[in-house]
Amino acid sequence: MQPPQRILAVLPPTIRTILSEGPSSSSQTVHAWVRSIRAHKNVAFAEVDDGTARVQAVLKGKGMEAGLTQGCSVALSGTLQASTGKKQAVEFMVETAKTIGACDPDVYPIQKQQVPPAYLRDHAHLRFRTARTAAIMRVRDSLMRDWHDWFESNEFVHIHTPILTSSDCEGAGEAFALVNPIVNHPTSASAPQSSSASAGPSSSQSTSDRFFPHPVNLTVSSQLHLECPTHALPRTYTLSPAFRAEPSLTSRHLSEFYMLEAEVAFVDTLDQLLDAVEKGMREVLHRLMWEHGRGERTRKDLEIIRDHEPADDYGSPHLAAEPERPALSHLINAAARPFARMTYTSAIKALQAAQEEIEGRFEHPPIWGQGLSSEHERYLAAQNGGPTIITHYPAAIKPFYMLPSSADPSWAAEGGEQGETVACFDLLLPGLGELIGGSLREHRLGPLVAAMKKAGLKKEEYEWYLDLRRFGSVPHGGWGMGWERWVCWVTGVANIRDVVAFPRWKGNCRY
Amino acid sequence: MQPPQRILAVLPPTIRTILSEGPSSSSQTVHAWVRSIRAHKNVAFAEVDDGTARVQAVLKGKGMEAGLTQGCSVALSGTLQASTGKKQAVEFMVETAKTIGACDPDVYPIQKQQVPPAYLRDHAHLRFRTARTAAIMRVRDSLMRDWHDWFESNEFVHIHTPILTSSDCEGAGEAFALVNPIVNHPTSASAPQSSSASAGPSSSQSTSDRFFPHPVNLTVSSQLHLECPTHALPRTYTLSPAFRAEPSLTSRHLSEFYMLEAEVAFVDTLDQLLDAVEKGMREVLHRLMWEHGRGERTRKDLEIIRDHEPADDYGSPHLAAEPERPALSHLINAAARPFARMTYTSAIKALQAAQEEIEGRFEHPPIWGQGLSSEHERYLAAQNGGPTIITHYPAAIKPFYMLPSSADPSWAAEGGEQGETVACFDLLLPGLGELIGGSLREHRLGPLVAAMKKAGLKKEEYEWYLDLRRFGSVPHGGWGMGWERWVCWVTGVANIRDVVAFPRWKGNCRY
Repeated sequence: MQPPQRILAVLPPTIRTILSEGPSSSSQTVHAWVRSIRAHKNVAFAEVDDGTARVQAVLKGKGMEAGLTQGCSVALSGTLQASTGKKQAVEFMVETAKTIGACDPDVYPIQKQQVPPAYLRDHAHLRFRTARTAAIMRVRDSLMRDWHDWFESNEFVHIHTPILTSSDCEGAGEAFALVNPIVNHPTSASAPQSSSASAGPSSSQSTSDRFFPHPVNLTVSSQLHLECPTHALPRTYTLSPAFRAEPSLTSRHLSEFYMLEAEVAFVDTLDQLLDAVEKGMREVLHRLMWEHGRGERTRKDLEIIRDHEPADDYGSPHLAAEPERPALSHLINAAARPFARMTYTSAIKALQAAQEEIEGRFEHPPIWGQGLSSEHERYLAAQNGGPTIITHYPAAIKPFYMLPSSADPSWAAEGGEQGETVACFDLLLPGLGELIGGSLREHRLGPLVAAMKKAGLKKEEYEWYLDLRRFGSVPHGGWGMGWERWVCWVTGVANIRDVVAFPRWKGNCRY
Repeated sequence: MQPPQRILAVLPPTIRTILSEGPSSSSQTVHAWVRSIRAHKNVAFAEVDDGTARVQAVLKGKGMEAGLTQGCSVALSGTLQASTGKKQAVEFMVETAKTIGACDPDVYPIQKQQVPPAYLRDHAHLRFRTARTAAIMRVRDSLMRDWHDWFESNEFVHIHTPILTSSDCEGAGEAFALVNPIVNHPTSASAPQSSSASAGPSSSQSTSDRFFPHPVNLTVSSQLHLECPTHALPRTYTLSPAFRAEPSLTSRHLSEFYMLEAEVAFVDTLDQLLDAVEKGMREVLHRLMWEHGRGERTRKDLEIIRDHEPADDYGSPHLAAEPERPALSHLINAAARPFARMTYTSAIKALQAAQEEIEGRFEHPPIWGQGLSSEHERYLAAQNGGPTIITHYPAAIKPFYMLPSSADPSWAAEGGEQGETVACFDLLLPGLGELIGGSLREHRLGPLVAAMKKAGLKKEEYEWYLDLRRFGSVPHGGWGMGWERWVCWVTGVANIRDVVAFPRWKGNCRY
């Protein structure tokens, strides 16, 4: 009497599948975990959840709930029926209940569904069992698919760029280094698999016995690598891990994170690049807000996350201003109208005016030639009430590979007397600050070599990068989005450590 | 006169888009690279390619091809017309030609489209410009999407598992270690950012000044981490980088690679797991072979790869037996019938019989209790003429976390007198050997603790893993597929270094 065409029928059906089939007199078995249980005299109600959906299980008859505790796993046989209660449309009437894996309530570390996020971060292996973390993981998955779909339908090819690299893209000295192991050669005496360069017994071994012939870092950005295929496949992107040995302990930084980076050939002006970025972001938001299936499930999950947003130890800054904390309004607002765009030079002017208005408004006074601080970024985005793109930063505070604004044919010079600017942008969000950074790349060999010299880089280490400009060079540009920041912004989660399965930051690399 | 509804119209249209619109009298501009050029007296023919498609450009009039060389980038304005030639249906009649980026043919490193793969590996930053590598990258992208789609439609949630880890999953001692940097505290004197533990000036710093409080490795497998969310979301998977400091220089090993790993809760028997794996693989193959759109493009790319498969320095073993080297027949065969399944014990018997038949057939004699060597794996898969699943290997040669066969209710004991086996499997392919490995996991606390003790692991480092068995444990299992091996098998590419954008192996981490 099993319904036909169930998904992957060799496995037990999920609650989502069972619910989608609706009430039925056929007996079936729910496999799930008990999230809460209320026992009355002759009946018990258990909320059971298998990560795809949640259902109320009704256990009639004295003692049927014996052994069922919060956190235990169960196989419940019975029937899905229309509910007589008002809180839910259906409920699962249990005929036989079996505990699969027990869970002692006296020692179970996450007995309540709402426990402080800091505590849960210390129990990352168990926090998937909370409604909030499970929903965050599902939304993260769904957002990944939406972006993959967007890129595919716009003819981008995904490239797996390398994690191990001999270069240090940003030159910021924040790259993690790899221990370059000594390799035991079958012919030599056993040498220690150690990182120590002064190991005695292996002193006869030359440096050629290292695993790699030179120092190796973990990538801080895939951009330089991604530029290579972009000189053959004109639109490429990668969703790839990146690493920074940055000791900041903020709610917006991780040592290990994902970046969604894209690179596009045949782009002549910065405006074209901005249009592409904005189009992508707004189309993905549209999908999320209006689509059936995946979008529908995501919207439900955003509500779950909102309803479980902890208020005790931190708030969600960009939702704080909205008393009802709707799960979607900031996304609807962002998609509804074009993103604000302003140059760095006019942004500095606006910040300076604001600083004059209220003395000491900003801790760091806004000065042309210096980077924007987080307080500046948040102010600008808040003023614009949505995503805000700041363009044309001073060349002196940006990496060597960015194209001077003067080489962009659409650039109307501004702020020139204060110093040279580059054809770059940051996309800022209210409450969050920088989400995306990007630029046109210097595609002319001579100016690039000069920029590298100025930046103090060794030309011989970048010959491959220069080759792209020697052979069939094209105007191109790209951008990178901090993936976890995107997930934070969409979900309204305030701390980046809560949108990663196993977050790593200074002092923390458990598991 | 631009056609409406073009994809991402802010960027120049790709050749794929232009071709899809068909011949037209509207003038438009093709942005691409010249792959080859033939100049006659009053006409020149240039094959131009932008990575989405290739078209023949016809340059009429003397000298119009001036400056166009192989490898240069161009903007060609003109019209797409039905071709008068027999080789192609359409061609692009050029009115004006402009070189964007020149390419000096005297020094361009990849002047011919067919250059030896070993040479191209040394020029990985440029090899995307060959028809073969470009097609491989597109197929890799397309296969990633097919698997993501399959997992989504079967209710799996993708989890980004960590790269940096404090554990060493397989315990094989092949993990790369991270240099754990010393962190400069603002209050202390400047300490060197060095990995040396005996640096003089920083001797007053305690170990708490390390970035992480303990040694950190790069992950060798995401399995243990993936088991955590699988105790809340019942079907999870990850496509994640993994690393092995394995010095082998074979055509099947890399130091950095991707693994497609899945984990499923509420699985009682190994047969259920095998059915799920086989169903996934066959359904993805079906999609690839019969679907329109993405599947169609992939099939064309497989033909391009086959047509450019280098015959000079190596052959493709699993295609070698097929004189016409069809691009799809091994895939069609694999999808057409159930995969062969046999136990390790019967596999050993078959190998021993084969060894008796032809003395010295195998370099390594097949012996119960020892691992299968590559020659054994290839023999078994070749005998079965397609994907072959070997199950129930001896416990002594498998990791601690595998469930004993005797704990699988469907297991009919075999080979018991020779030693205990575990409920695990390897999926082998003709010519390639192991593609997938998987098992049921030990979900019972007591036996798992005993297995860890036996394996010499420190229990205190795995308390989090044991917690999964303490609190709501469930029978579960999973598998991992070497992503690059999958791409090799589908494409028929013999060397794994050719299906990775920037491959890393012992002695090689350029770029």
